[in-house]
Amino acid sequence: MTDPLTTALAYHEAWTGHDFDRAMTHIADDVVCDAPAGRIEGAEAFRAFMGPFSRILVSSTLLAAFGDERTALLMYDTDTVPVRNAPASEFLTVRDGLITHLRIIFDRTPFDAARLAAQGIPT
Amino acid sequence: MTDPLTTALAYHEAWTGHDFDRAMTHIADDVVCDAPAGRIEGAEAFRAFMGPFSRILVSSTLLAAFGDERTALLMYDTDTVPVRNAPASEFLTVRDGLITHLRIIFDRTPFDAARLAAQGIPT
Repeated sequence: MTDPLTTALAYHEAWTGHDFDRAMTHIADDVVCDAPAGRIEGAEAFRAFMGPFSRILVSSTLLAAFGDERTALLMYDTDTVPVRNAPASEFLTVRDGLITHLRIIFDRTPFDAARLAAQGIPT
Repeated sequence: MTDPLTTALAYHEAWTGHDFDRAMTHIADDVVCDAPAGRIEGAEAFRAFMGPFSRILVSSTLLAAFGDERTALLMYDTDTVPVRNAPASEFLTVRDGLITHLRIIFDRTPFDAARLAAQGIPT
């Protein structure tokens, strides 16, 4: 059995490498994800939330990664198509080699601004 | 010399306990803080940024805390006067027992919405 940090990094490497199908192999069917906009429950809902972010990712840099026997905590920076320098942090709980819970923190403000700008709405 | 995680937790305990003067004893004079709105340089500018947040804090819960010989990584949830459930993550670099760099991630969106609501502006 791989330890939680190894699982978290394998998931991270897959989605930041634009291989979201491979990323999902590390996600439990009953995953719960607490994200800025609210709670997401189940693997399909999680894929619908995180998959599109994977596709707008241009590059990423892992800033810090720690783990213990049950969890892992990552911080990374990303450049995305709409927003450059969009850092995020994830606290992942792993059970039997699968990620069962994620708490993801990032700042929605620049993404909201980019979406409004794309619609021609000044912010 | 205390290790970086101990320093980070002492800082965290002080500011979440509303003792920002004590919190500042763990901050280097030439601290650099990368926050959602941009870079903050120097202890006085950092106090001006983080002190007001300490004052609107109602309660906080440490979710995860890790460290190595040079850094610490924390994730915590907060309830604040304008926003409930405002989690944040901090990646801290510690040198000679003082915090020299912080990268803080949180979602500005609910704080922006609360400020506009307080001004009577619908969001």
